Amino acid sequence: MFGLIPKEEKFFQLFKQMTENTIEGALALKDMLDNFENPAASQRKIKDIEHNGDSLTHEIIQKLNKTFVTPFDREDIYALSSALDDILDLIDASAQRIIMYNVETIPHEAKSLGFIILQSCQVVDKAVAMLGKQSNEHIFEACVEINALENEADRVSREAISRLFDEEKDPIQLIKWKEIFETLEKATDKCEDAANILESVVVKNA
Amino acid sequence: MFGLIPKEEKFFQLFKQMTENTIEGALALKDMLDNFENPAASQRKIKDIEHNGDSLTHEIIQKLNKTFVTPFDREDIYALSSALDDILDLIDASAQRIIMYNVETIPHEAKSLGFIILQSCQVVDKAVAMLGKQSNEHIFEACVEINALENEADRVSREAISRLFDEEKDPIQLIKWKEIFETLEKATDKCEDAANILESVVVKNA
Amino acid sequence: MFGLIPKEEKFFQLFKQMTENTIEGALALKDMLDNFENPAASQRKIKDIEHNGDSLTHEIIQKLNKTFVTPFDREDIYALSSALDDILDLIDASAQRIIMYNVETIPHEAKSLGFIILQSCQVVDKAVAMLGKQSNEHIFEACVEINALENEADRVSREAISRLFDEEKDPIQLIKWKEIFETLEKATDKCEDAANILESVVVKNA
Repeated sequence: MFGLIPKEEKFFQLFKQMTENTIEGALALKDMLDNFENPAASQRKIKDIEHNGDSLTHEIIQKLNKTFVTPFDREDIYALSSALDDILDLIDASAQRIIMYNVETIPHEAKSLGFIILQSCQVVDKAVAMLGKQSNEHIFEACVEINALENEADRVSREAISRLFDEEKDPIQLIKWKEIFETLEKATDKCEDAANILESVVVKNA
Repeated sequence: MFGLIPKEEKFFQLFKQMTENTIEGALALKDMLDNFENPAASQRKIKDIEHNGDSLTHEIIQKLNKTFVTPFDREDIYALSSALDDILDLIDASAQRIIMYNVETIPHEAKSLGFIILQSCQVVDKAVAMLGKQSNEHIFEACVEINALENEADRVSREAISRLFDEEKDPIQLIKWKEIFETLEKATDKCEDAANILESVVVKNA
Repeated sequence: MFGLIPKEEKFFQLFKQMTENTIEGALALKDMLDNFENPAASQRKIKDIEHNGDSLTHEIIQKLNKTFVTPFDREDIYALSSALDDILDLIDASAQRIIMYNVETIPHEAKSLGFIILQSCQVVDKAVAMLGKQSNEHIFEACVEINALENEADRVSREAISRLFDEEKDPIQLIKWKEIFETLEKATDKCEDAANILESVVVKNA
């Protein structure tokens, strides 16, 4: 069994709130990409969710500053909350670029990436829920799943950019879409960063 | 009160020298962007300041290797000196790109970013000066200020790039300026990274 | 003498296998860039080497999870294995972009970067081999060497991109090569990251 004693259950609750908020952001991004009905409204909604994430991060830091005994190392609590915050920042950055670049339609690869981001956020949420409760093996399995999703996002984004270089003759359009694909892919990189921190927390406390 | 005992005052002095050197670099960059009189000379001056920063970083590492009792965790001293070094690297990278890309005039957004970079470096210097002396709350306040400056730089850079996509018809000019804006913005990201390390040091030693 | 007791020699062996595998990847990339005879076959070979690297990383994590006494801090073992993995990821990313962008010839600067990447990987391998065996000073010297190679790669890549902006009139070609040069340069950044972790491990255990 996982060797951490949940001395301060509140930290686990705050992390869980963060990952649930991240899922909210990923759902709003997926809806923006799939339906593209009112992208400006979608982007504002994602920005609000991102602000909510900032408040939760701030609450964790404040709590850390006032708590003597923490469920795992202070620096790891700090690192995990930053990593979770980064996921939402990239979801927000993707939505911002879609608005900023005045794009007119959403190519199918961007929709696929939106779906992979949502799946990654869901597995991160699942892994965070296991902290202090489930065996190391289950957390490792979730981390492997997050890695596989990142590889898949990498492949989709690479193929999308490859197609762009084959088909897009307008270099300015190419620059825009290359960056949107890369930003979407980076959101899954940040899920992988969070998975790496979870893995290292588990390893340290083994 | 802040719980660190300044056993080795010399480290604090070296960090202070690093942040003062970073302010030097930010001042030289701001002057380069505002006046644009002899950009090549400005760039060389910034490069010299950056070399000076490398020496200070090296001195901290050497000192760390010879000191038994450190004022806070060895790895955090290491991380903080790297983060301070990174700020100056990005200031230098911005100046280099302006020379490398043969730019002819400096748009107003680049001047704004130069000013925000200088302000961020000044707050980082203020926060470092408080280490081991002031209460956690004051250091947290400085970190919030650095975060707000990073948000502002992000907004300015985003609007500048958005304008670029609207107005610039030459894709090569667009590529150049997009990257200069992004590099300037990254300097404030590095100030935020330094703030995050300061925050985590304070939290760990609370 | 270096203060680490090699309680678990197996970790040092696994790290050594990782750095040797990275040299394999760097050799294959150098051959791809220098000869450019069957780039698709070269890229597949590099991808296989990269998968091999993933297995070694996984083995280290698994071992970490089952080992009670480690030769140095668990989180540093984790960080070092991630950093070594990142070097190979960037070597692979460079090879992938060369295939993905259908490039026809390899400019001399890309060949120089391939050579610098190989040299950096060799010094990283040398530094890792010294862990737990040689004095701090020798490891520091290797780290200085890795830093110098990264500076050299930075200069070569900057000059290559500068030439690109002077000579290349097709913006799409410019985008492709700018990114290939930057990706090659990033491989040496990752060697520097590994050097920084080695330096910080040595400093912590001084």
